[in-house]
Amino acid sequence: MIPNRGQILFFVNEGGAASYGNLVNRARAADRIRKAVAEQAGRVREQRGIEVKLAVILVEGDPASLAYAKAKQRWASRLGIAFEWIRLPSGVTEQELMGIIDTLNRDDGVHGILLELPLPRHLSSKAIIEAISPWKDVDGLTSSNRLANQTGAPGLYPATPLSCVRLLEDYGYELKGRHAVVVGRGETVGMPLLHLLLRKNATVTVCHSYTPDLSVPLRQADFVFAAAGRQGLITKSMVHPDLVAIDAGINETDSGELKGDVDSGAILRLQALSPVPGGVGTLTTAILFENVIKAFELQHGKKQQNFIRKGGV
Amino acid sequence: MIPNRGQILFFVNEGGAASYGNLVNRARAADRIRKAVAEQAGRVREQRGIEVKLAVILVEGDPASLAYAKAKQRWASRLGIAFEWIRLPSGVTEQELMGIIDTLNRDDGVHGILLELPLPRHLSSKAIIEAISPWKDVDGLTSSNRLANQTGAPGLYPATPLSCVRLLEDYGYELKGRHAVVVGRGETVGMPLLHLLLRKNATVTVCHSYTPDLSVPLRQADFVFAAAGRQGLITKSMVHPDLVAIDAGINETDSGELKGDVDSGAILRLQALSPVPGGVGTLTTAILFENVIKAFELQHGKKQQNFIRKGGV
Repeated sequence: MIPNRGQILFFVNEGGAASYGNLVNRARAADRIRKAVAEQAGRVREQRGIEVKLAVILVEGDPASLAYAKAKQRWASRLGIAFEWIRLPSGVTEQELMGIIDTLNRDDGVHGILLELPLPRHLSSKAIIEAISPWKDVDGLTSSNRLANQTGAPGLYPATPLSCVRLLEDYGYELKGRHAVVVGRGETVGMPLLHLLLRKNATVTVCHSYTPDLSVPLRQADFVFAAAGRQGLITKSMVHPDLVAIDAGINETDSGELKGDVDSGAILRLQALSPVPGGVGTLTTAILFENVIKAFELQHGKKQQNFIRKGGV
Repeated sequence: MIPNRGQILFFVNEGGAASYGNLVNRARAADRIRKAVAEQAGRVREQRGIEVKLAVILVEGDPASLAYAKAKQRWASRLGIAFEWIRLPSGVTEQELMGIIDTLNRDDGVHGILLELPLPRHLSSKAIIEAISPWKDVDGLTSSNRLANQTGAPGLYPATPLSCVRLLEDYGYELKGRHAVVVGRGETVGMPLLHLLLRKNATVTVCHSYTPDLSVPLRQADFVFAAAGRQGLITKSMVHPDLVAIDAGINETDSGELKGDVDSGAILRLQALSPVPGGVGTLTTAILFENVIKAFELQHGKKQQNFIRKGGV
């Protein structure tokens, strides 16, 4: 279903703004993915007698990380995925952490490994991430998975960029031959998203802090993906009524509110908006668990072709 | 020096077309790089008693590869770089080839390894390239170097994309904050060029066979890099007088002529053109030997910071 021009699809009523159509459907992609994950986990349990398992490593100290890990634990339980929680004191050494990852890499009973970030300053995130086996790296952060995401080779791709694309596809938008603008070139969202969009055969423009005037590239865009992490960066004057905006910016205001990179004023001039909060974020955890199932399949030697076909993006 | 609008800088008089200004300078970047390479190789010889050495592996059968290898041998001799030529019969097995690469990887007297491509069909180029030590991979083709090229980490970056950027810079053009369009998304030129341009802080658009109308993104472009490998793809009607075109397309006509992706008719409407033949190609071999020197430095543990500063791009 392609929405009519002017219809605002994903807008979630926040802070007293007016409410727009199709709110009922905003979580449908997430629901469908979760349902498929629960079914696949159940099938593996019944047919092969294996509990698909995610191990989450949390180095204590960051309250947000604790909350994220807890949310994953709840979802794992609902989806029938076993959950191993490794909580480490904030003073853990790099060597100790590497040793734990090595043990998890070798443990055939653990299919996905997730390291909650950020780590305390005395630990090198980069080196520690690289220590995770690419076949278990459900966040898609290792070099090997970053390259796989670029070429479409089998691997585990990062969840947030996938969420952006899947959300659009779920609403019937096609990327092939269309022009997408990515604002932001970070390693977590902007860059993997660029590659994902190219693999979908979109023409892609990457903008960033040195782009003198965002409104110029946006004039030609069918889609804009905002991943700069700068609150309200994209304003009403920069957008046009044929543009669909996917906000993947995460900004916390002084009062603790979550805000995106698309200014709320832009909504009234866009064809559609996936807002923050309430947009791609709703999909990301679901896709993370989809990655846990994929990790299981990769480790159990499913043929590449099957894997890619099932993987969707 | 920024050329005046309408001036055609890099145009080489081919096929009876009119000749344009500044032809004298077209090889100046290549000359300067070669001079620096020869000086550095000389310094290493004098101060450390080491001959910087490039090993070239040629699997017999492709006449073009033979010609390329011979050209490298001639340049090596002129620049004071030792040259080891490993010529293998066309029936060499993957295992034998891997064994040779392994020996070269371990040989402290060999600083750069270059595998002439394409390989015969029975050999997996991908697996064989990955077997080359990233610190000796002067073509910048291993995964590790492809990622380094993306992030700016120390490593050996591919020569053709570097040539495109260095040529522009040599003529005084700045990429920062300007809009560059890359036509083509191949692993050898298009994709590494995209990352290089982003690291130069250009806004970058990637176009490809699914881009419905190239003239639309080109309207906003300050620079276009043609790397699609489709002869005459970019025509006069698509370009504008503020546009600078760098042709990196390599197409051989039925009569054996070398042609680029930019149609010769486009020249009269561009601000400047680096044509094929005669443009980036003149730089590529020079930069390859610059990579041999860099490989030596990487292996001898120059501090990263020094390396990056010296590396330029």
